[in-house]
Amino acid sequence: MRLRLVLRVLGLLVGIVSLSMIWPLYWSLSDGTADWGAFVVSILAGLSIGAAMFALGKGEDYQELGIREAFAVVSLSWVVASAVGALPFYLSQSVPTYTDGFFEAMSGFSTTGASILTDIESNPRGILFWRSLTHWLGGMGIIVLSLAILPFIGVGGMQLFKAEVPGPTPEKLTPRVQQTAVLLWAVYVLLSALEVGALALGGMNMFESLTHTFGTMATGGFSPLNGSIGQYDSAYFDWVITLFMFLAGANFALHYMVLRGKWGSWWNDEEFRFYLKVVLFSTFSVALSLYLSGQVSTFERSLRDGAFQVVSILTTTGYATADFDRWPFYGKMVLFLLMFLGGCAGSTGGGIKNVRIMVLIKRVGMEISHLLHPQQIIRLRLNGRVLKEDVLASVTAFFIIYVLLFAGFSLAMAATGLDLIEAFSSVAATLGNIGPGFGQIGPTGNYSAISITGKWILSLCMLLGRLEIFTVVMLFVPGTWRQ
Amino acid sequence: MRLRLVLRVLGLLVGIVSLSMIWPLYWSLSDGTADWGAFVVSILAGLSIGAAMFALGKGEDYQELGIREAFAVVSLSWVVASAVGALPFYLSQSVPTYTDGFFEAMSGFSTTGASILTDIESNPRGILFWRSLTHWLGGMGIIVLSLAILPFIGVGGMQLFKAEVPGPTPEKLTPRVQQTAVLLWAVYVLLSALEVGALALGGMNMFESLTHTFGTMATGGFSPLNGSIGQYDSAYFDWVITLFMFLAGANFALHYMVLRGKWGSWWNDEEFRFYLKVVLFSTFSVALSLYLSGQVSTFERSLRDGAFQVVSILTTTGYATADFDRWPFYGKMVLFLLMFLGGCAGSTGGGIKNVRIMVLIKRVGMEISHLLHPQQIIRLRLNGRVLKEDVLASVTAFFIIYVLLFAGFSLAMAATGLDLIEAFSSVAATLGNIGPGFGQIGPTGNYSAISITGKWILSLCMLLGRLEIFTVVMLFVPGTWRQ
Repeated sequence: MRLRLVLRVLGLLVGIVSLSMIWPLYWSLSDGTADWGAFVVSILAGLSIGAAMFALGKGEDYQELGIREAFAVVSLSWVVASAVGALPFYLSQSVPTYTDGFFEAMSGFSTTGASILTDIESNPRGILFWRSLTHWLGGMGIIVLSLAILPFIGVGGMQLFKAEVPGPTPEKLTPRVQQTAVLLWAVYVLLSALEVGALALGGMNMFESLTHTFGTMATGGFSPLNGSIGQYDSAYFDWVITLFMFLAGANFALHYMVLRGKWGSWWNDEEFRFYLKVVLFSTFSVALSLYLSGQVSTFERSLRDGAFQVVSILTTTGYATADFDRWPFYGKMVLFLLMFLGGCAGSTGGGIKNVRIMVLIKRVGMEISHLLHPQQIIRLRLNGRVLKEDVLASVTAFFIIYVLLFAGFSLAMAATGLDLIEAFSSVAATLGNIGPGFGQIGPTGNYSAISITGKWILSLCMLLGRLEIFTVVMLFVPGTWRQ
Repeated sequence: MRLRLVLRVLGLLVGIVSLSMIWPLYWSLSDGTADWGAFVVSILAGLSIGAAMFALGKGEDYQELGIREAFAVVSLSWVVASAVGALPFYLSQSVPTYTDGFFEAMSGFSTTGASILTDIESNPRGILFWRSLTHWLGGMGIIVLSLAILPFIGVGGMQLFKAEVPGPTPEKLTPRVQQTAVLLWAVYVLLSALEVGALALGGMNMFESLTHTFGTMATGGFSPLNGSIGQYDSAYFDWVITLFMFLAGANFALHYMVLRGKWGSWWNDEEFRFYLKVVLFSTFSVALSLYLSGQVSTFERSLRDGAFQVVSILTTTGYATADFDRWPFYGKMVLFLLMFLGGCAGSTGGGIKNVRIMVLIKRVGMEISHLLHPQQIIRLRLNGRVLKEDVLASVTAFFIIYVLLFAGFSLAMAATGLDLIEAFSSVAATLGNIGPGFGQIGPTGNYSAISITGKWILSLCMLLGRLEIFTVVMLFVPGTWRQ
């Protein structure tokens, strides 16, 4: 492990994060609110720390970034970004403790959207803008990470599509990563611009259009409004955001191909079809149960509420237009289970990912065939191609560790005093990078009452979930640090 | 598929189940209660049906029982036994509908212990004896099934120990199954006799000693008392039953070896050590949380309550000495998670089984090594022996389908109107063959208020869980019925 190289890359990142605070600083200055000082101090502190780290790592060549360094850089990126990103929250006294600030920043950068703010609208716009911007920056990081870096260190759902995605050669990072990153960021920026335009067209002001777009495209879920998207009570905004959440939860490599004119790319992709079917089935069944329960007066409304909440939770965004904690049990259960499914590989969404669940279902089918025909060799295919044994093994291992960590962290959260549903849903909602859960952390609640220990545990969950678990787990394996 | 052969074997089983009703009939006659008629009718009906089935399958040779027939015989055994076993409950009007009778009988034979009886003690002793006897018979069936039949059709946790266990050659059943069965039944009967003796020594009457032993050794959990074991409020009974539940949840092949003088067999077995550690850790941590919560006055009592409930749930028995639904959240969460772990392979316990979870944890470790050393081939060992690829694949597939079915059935139960915790715990408690869950189906509640649809779903869960899922799933695969 070349520690100095890791330090140098992280120093660069700290600098970028600090500089990006200039944008929220602009809102503070133009509003003349007191939080401008917090941003100035944070920027200066961040730049100094970043420069120091960068200087300490002097003389190292980025071309030498190997697999061990990649694990360290990727995992620690989100940690240092959150550590620095917490400063404005803490210094402006928007949060009571540094832990809360770190939680909020990690929730932002990991595009989770779990908040400890009790009265969001009482905060200055600069702070709220920063909060939403962390989503957008985190989403940008995830796109390049999941599409270009993780597949080549053997982690992440996108390794299932390895052959199809433009990207670097394995083991070492090459300039091709940069090309991939630029192309995919262009897609991300373009879709973001389209959403801002669509929201502004509906009459949303620029501040809210931007922050809500950040939350949508990153599948984050922070809103500057206490009542999230539901506060507008607007069918137009509901459907526009549902559409963009759906796009943000799908594979960005597909969007890129579609933008290049290959319209069939969406439908030709097995995962996209599966994802679409899940959305349709869940939406209609939830809408039906909502309508039959009498909680909403028209079927149009139950369809809109159903679609919004289903897409919001499945894509791991976490915006709300209805208090689903008070829904009929069937609808609540659908949402709870969708938390595990999550978005598609190569999207900004979290969770286990649709493609993995598809592969696991096929895996069970293989076992059934094997029981009937013990001698026959059965191969598992995805998009018509045979899956390699080691990729299948990695998908399986991911599922196992996801379930085991879910169980272990739920136990830990129960020990901090949460009831069963709160413990389960707090871990599901952070490990899956969703945001709201059920009970006190439901769509109308927040994470403020969780204990300090609980907040650190959930911050770890957000990090683990966001970085496809193994990337972070590697940090705790002595072997990573040798050589 | 040789359907007539399947019919013949099932006919024989129906006959045995019917004849076993003579024992509860004895209690009815000696008590002079009205349920004796229900038993006489059930016995005659069962014998006639059994004889007819047996006759229809005339001319088939048992030596011809192949893999397809084995799946059918094993799965349908528990279904026909429950269909016939339901008759006394239904005819004596102990249950309101035949569905309830079937649920109670399936719960008995599958050694689950989930009950729809609201006032247990209001039933005649004959009925209660039959209810407990179904446990004991089911447990006997499971021992021979899990140790001698399932491993050789590629299903079940015991295939992990294939080499160590005496049993039949693959594909065809040979007389060696009978030898194995007889030896293991001897262990089962011996342990049962020891428990009856120990309970009687403590002053329990013969009826209750027998029924409670049936519930213990089969890891079932039906008690003829409304307050389960807690009704005695006796430290002696609590500890005796805790000990025998622990033994019933361990591998009977190990008990056999210990009885033959190989005392090291328990400790030399990796799964047994894991199982013991889980019991000790869970017991002490739960006891501590109970004591600190102030719900119990002495540490001795919290240790006793903790040990009893932990062992009862982990071994999938389901007896209760405390209302764990009102425990601190940590203790509830431990019990909820233990529902999935379950007993050891080759025990009468259900759940995923300790050995599978052990193998899955090792599987995750393998993946971590693989990420660091992509070229290296890592082998997974159990008890010092390298696990074969297909066995590892089968363990993985079992875990995946267990989790997927848990999710799917929880959704179905929520649709029948259960809240999230009740839906989750009803499925966990039936798929794991445990019995009580949380909420209305908690240790002081029962399953009577579940809808008719819900009762059939949960009956299917009990069957699936008891027969290691794939055995039953095969029935729904067209390929099984061909040839």
